Order: sequence, then structure tokens, then C-alpha cells
Amino acid sequence: VSTPQMQTVTLIPGDGIGPEISTAVMKIFEAAKAPIRWEERNVTAIKGPGGKWMIPPDAKESMDRSKIGLKGPLKTPIAAGHPSMNLLLRKTFDLYANVRPCISIEGYKTPYTDVNLVTIRENTEGEYSGIEHVIVDGVVQSIKLITEEASRRIAEYAFEYARNNQRNSVTAVHKANIMRMSDGLFLRKCREVAENYKDIKFTEMYLDTVCLNMVQDPTQFDVLVMPNLYGDILSDLCAGLIGGLGVTPSGNIGANGVAIFESVHGTAPDIAGLDMANPTALLLSAVMMLRHMGLHDHAHKIQMACFDTIRDKKVLTKDLGGNSKCSEFTAEICRRKHAHN
Amino acid sequence: VSTPQMQTVTLIPGDGIGPEISTAVMKIFEAAKAPIRWEERNVTAIKGPGGKWMIPPDAKESMDRSKIGLKGPLKTPIAAGHPSMNLLLRKTFDLYANVRPCISIEGYKTPYTDVNLVTIRENTEGEYSGIEHVIVDGVVQSIKLITEEASRRIAEYAFEYARNNQRNSVTAVHKANIMRMSDGLFLRKCREVAENYKDIKFTEMYLDTVCLNMVQDPTQFDVLVMPNLYGDILSDLCAGLIGGLGVTPSGNIGANGVAIFESVHGTAPDIAGLDMANPTALLLSAVMMLRHMGLHDHAHKIQMACFDTIRDKKVLTKDLGGNSKCSEFTAEICRRKHAHN
Ligand SMILES: CC(C)[C@H](C(=O)O)[C@@H](O)C(=O)O
Ligand SMILES: CC(C)[C@H](C(=O)O)[C@@H](O)C(=O)O
Repeated sequence: VSTPQMQTVTLIPGDGIGPEISTAVMKIFEAAKAPIRWEERNVTAIKGPGGKWMIPPDAKESMDRSKIGLKGPLKTPIAAGHPSMNLLLRKTFDLYANVRPCISIEGYKTPYTDVNLVTIRENTEGEYSGIEHVIVDGVVQSIKLITEEASRRIAEYAFEYARNNQRNSVTAVHKANIMRMSDGLFLRKCREVAENYKDIKFTEMYLDTVCLNMVQDPTQFDVLVMPNLYGDILSDLCAGLIGGLGVTPSGNIGANGVAIFESVHGTAPDIAGLDMANPTALLLSAVMMLRHMGLHDHAHKIQMACFDTIRDKKVLTKDLGGNSKCSEFTAEICRRKHAHN
Repeated sequence: VSTPQMQTVTLIPGDGIGPEISTAVMKIFEAAKAPIRWEERNVTAIKGPGGKWMIPPDAKESMDRSKIGLKGPLKTPIAAGHPSMNLLLRKTFDLYANVRPCISIEGYKTPYTDVNLVTIRENTEGEYSGIEHVIVDGVVQSIKLITEEASRRIAEYAFEYARNNQRNSVTAVHKANIMRMSDGLFLRKCREVAENYKDIKFTEMYLDTVCLNMVQDPTQFDVLVMPNLYGDILSDLCAGLIGGLGVTPSGNIGANGVAIFESVHGTAPDIAGLDMANPTALLLSAVMMLRHMGLHDHAHKIQMACFDTIRDKKVLTKDLGGNSKCSEFTAEICRRKHAHN
């Protein structure tokens, strides 16, 4: 058996419980013999030469080289004018697609079973353009910016994702009945791209209708693609269906293979350092990362080990309904046969 | 016992199943001796003098006089340039607040029980301003307009509603972390108004967080107030939690007591005229209307008769899981003791 070549990943442990859950992921990767070399970096923004906020040069340099990041939660900056770290990272690396697979976890009870869908959110423009004005006193406008370029790019990503992940349909989510020009442009691009993917079924649905149908029967959905804000909303809604941000993975994808995978829950400062955190969201994000890197076998066995552990209900962290420590839950996943060759 | 004075309501039966479910409501109101005189009108838009779309003068005149409308579903216009009837009605009568109580109906099974919340949506501006431009080829902007005036008005409505309906808390739903100026203004007005309602608890929450929490535990919410688009989304999401648009009432409220209550489901052309439609959404909207008119006793007994009928499960329309016709379901509600004095 030939040893697979080691690949470097930039690890951003983050704040609060970030370091603990990062350690958990590294241990599980080691047990599963995943060929990953970690390069740890801190991304907390600093003020650059022109007074512009930027991520530290050594973190930027590591990401530029490795192209792949795994990131724990970052605390919300409190300094005035300090940008959201999430937004800064998306911008710095032009991570244009946010991808969230929401798949029901057997053994973790929620009102829904058999959820198996993926939200794909345009991550760079739309309502997040940051352009706002005061027109006159008491009258404010925010601009939603939709471009042909970004709409086509995200539509193409969605269809490619569907094809490469054995998914059957893509639904474009919009309000083109109200925002006829902006959502209209987004929708037109989706329709055009759909023409090139005759193997994937294409449908369109109003955002409000999607929300209504989603809580009534999420199993009707497969891949959903949408502008920025709608994705912000739907991705969290769907995370709720399967048990929340503690079990939902997320990936931010850019051009040329660049990507950062992350848990989207908070830093949980109240339990930080107490060996109580649940590493599942970061672990499943790391599994997405392995797939993105083409390491499907390692991805599969780590995911199975995690799901088996949860299904078994014997060793679970508190938020999952158990009494075990983070390190015990981690050890149990490592022990699972799937985690070994 | 003095006979209460009859009050006039403009009835807009609408299209498809609209006439059948309107008849059902009228029958139930008669059985319950509700002191309402109906004035039937058609609101399908016509082209006015200057080529502008408007609702027919006799419908406008009736509404101006009665101030209160009850409206069935209207078919989506197909003529090019024809406005959405919903938007035209909101605009014509400046119906600035859309109110949707979402209350679990005992006996009608959904993944949730004990939902008991109200969404209050700003109905006149925000993302629905209708202002859009092409900047350059392939780049489009839509403008979201938020005014101090409309934000204060909807916030005041929400707190008044809470106080008058024995509700304890109001949550402002926003994305002021992204749209700092527009949602920021909305939020500031909510905070200011909250100062005048010390008896009502005020909280703020990001829209994405609301969606996530809503599907995990809707019982944590009470009254929610928000800008237009967020309300469009959340009101449908919440309708989904209690069984969909077929059982969810809605009211559009303007200044000086003007209001139109409506079922927000479609015209269901496939079953129109077949005596199969479910009149519940329109009936519960009519119950909201009675409360709005101060006719609380009639409202209460009609609502109880409807809920009793559904809880009993003996006489239900098909969509509610039964085999009965619309007319049988209606007769059963009429028969219930609550519907009689
Ligand atoms: C933190 C915030 C800027 C962010 C957003 O609104 O996009 C968050 O909600 C997310 O989804 O990553
Ligand atoms: C029909 C459409 C214009 C409308 C909206 O988006 O407001 C509908 O979804 C609603 O909620 O009444």
C-alpha cells in the first residue's frame, strides 16, 4: 500500500471552544490516518498599512499556499469599525459559495427525519453589498446588488455540485415577483445554466413558499441555490431542522480550489476550556473538506464513525443529550472501527 | 337583550374557491348571529383615466364607507403590466401592517404543538419599494427603503397589539449587523417605541437566528415585528408550523380602523365549484375581523365552533384529513353549540 501524499491545511482554531474542538478533529484525523498536515494560524484582523482591516500576513500566506482552511468559531469583534471576521475572510479569499449540507443524523431526535438537502448561498454580493445612504433625514436606502457574473458563477457551482454529488435537482430560490430586475437577473442566469445540465432537474420557487414547504416537508428538497441574504436565512433554518449549528457543517468555496470549511456555531465562552464542547460541526466540516480534496474514503470513514457514535447514544456530549466530555466523545469516534483502516 | 347594531363589511369573494368559502363564512356568521351586513364587491384591477391600474370605483367606494373588508383568494393576473392585486390593495388603502396569528390547532397534527405567536410585517416599504435600476450591462440594483415614519408606525402597532391582546413580549427581527443603516433605523425606532411600553418585554434577534430558533422551538416566540421582506418569509414559515395557509388567518391593517382580512392561500382552480374547499383560513380571518371590530363574543364563539369541529375529527374537508364536503364542514360548525346563543 502506498502512503498517500500529505496535504497541508491551514487550521484556524478560533476562540472560546475553538481550540478544544480543533484538537478533537486533529485526533480523529490521526486515528483515521487522514493524510493531512496542519498549519495553525490566527486570523484575527489587524489594521494594515492604509488603515484597512486585514487578516495577518502569515495567515494569508499560509492560506495562499495551502488553499484549504479549517476554521473554528471566532468571537465577534467589539472594537468599533472592526469588520465581521466571517465577512473579511469571505472577501479576502473571494469565497463566493457557501455550502451547507443538512442531513438528518440518526439517533439525534428533531421533529424531522430524512432531511437530506444542501443550501448553496451566493456569498459576495446581493444585500451584503454594504452600500447604504441616508436620502433625507429619516429615509435610508440599502442597495442590493446582483450581477450577471456572480449569478452565473453560483448557478454553475450549484449544478456542478449536484452532478458531482449524485443529487438530482436544483431549486432556484427567489423573489423575482417583487424584485423583478435583481432577482430576475439571478433567476435568468440559473435558467441559462440549467440548460447545460439536462441530467439535473431544475425548478424555481419563491423564498416564502420554500420556507413554508420546508417546515412542512423538507424531504422534497435537494440542492437549493439562492442570493446572499436568502441563503443566510435558509441555511440557518435548515440547520434547525436537523438539530442546530452544533451538528451542521459548512464550507465556503472560492475559485481555483480555495476553500474554508467551518463550524458556524458560536464560541460558547461559558464552557470554553471545560472539556464539554461538542466537536461534531467542526468534524463534519472537516469531512466536507476531505471530500473537497478528493479524499473520499477518509471522509466516509470519519463520517461513519461520528454518526455511529451518535446513533449508539452511549458516549455523547451534554448538548447531544449525554454526559460525556468532549475528549471522551472524541476517543469514542477514534475507537470506532470505521476510523481505523 | 338589545340587538347589536349591524355593521357593514365589504366582501370580496375572489376567484376559484373564493365564492364557496365566502358563502361558508356568511352561513356561519348567520348561525352565530354576528351583526354583519355584507356588501359584495369585485376588486379585479381596471385601467383608470391616466392608464394607471386601480381597483373598480364601486369597490373602492364600498371600502371607503365600510372601512372593513373580507377577501378570498384572487387569481394572479396574467395581463402584462397588471399589478399584483395584493400589492395594489395594500397600496390603495395604505394597509401598513400585515398581522398573522399562528396558533396550533388541536387535532390537526403537525410536527409542532403549542405554537402561539403573531408575526407583524411592515407592509409598505423596505424591499418592496419597487425601485430598481440597471447600473451597467449585467449589474442590477434593487433599493430597500426604510423610513423613520413607517418604522415607528409598525413598531407602535406591534406594541399596541401586544398590549391589547394580552401578549407579553415583542421581538424585533432584523439584520442590522449587515444592513446597518436601514435595518439599524428600523431597530432604533423599535427600541424607542419599546420605551413607552414598559409592560411589554422587548427583545431583538437576527432574522437568521429567529429562523433557526423558530423551527427548533417556536413556543419561545410571542409577537414578532419586522420589515416587509422578512415578514413575507417568516409569516409563511410560521403558517407552515401550524398546518399551512389553509388554516392560517391574516389581516392587513391601515390607519383609522381601515383593514382587510384575507385568506392567503391560492384560488385552487382544480377543486373550484366542487364543494371540496376548506373555508378555515377565511373563517379565522373573519374571526380576526370581528375582534378588530370589537365583537369579541361573536369572535370567540365562532372560533371555538371551528376548533371544536377540527378537534372532533368527524366532519373534515379532505385537506384536513376528512371526507366531508365544504358545505358539510360548514354545517357542522354552524351546528356546534358555541355558534348559537
Ligand atoms: C455573522 C454574520 C455576518 C453572518 C451573515 O449574516 O452572513 C452569519 O449570519 C453567517 O451566516 O455566516
Ligand atoms: C403575492 C406576493 C406579492 C405577496 C408578497 O410577496 O408580499 C405574497 O407572498 C404575500 O405574502 O402576500
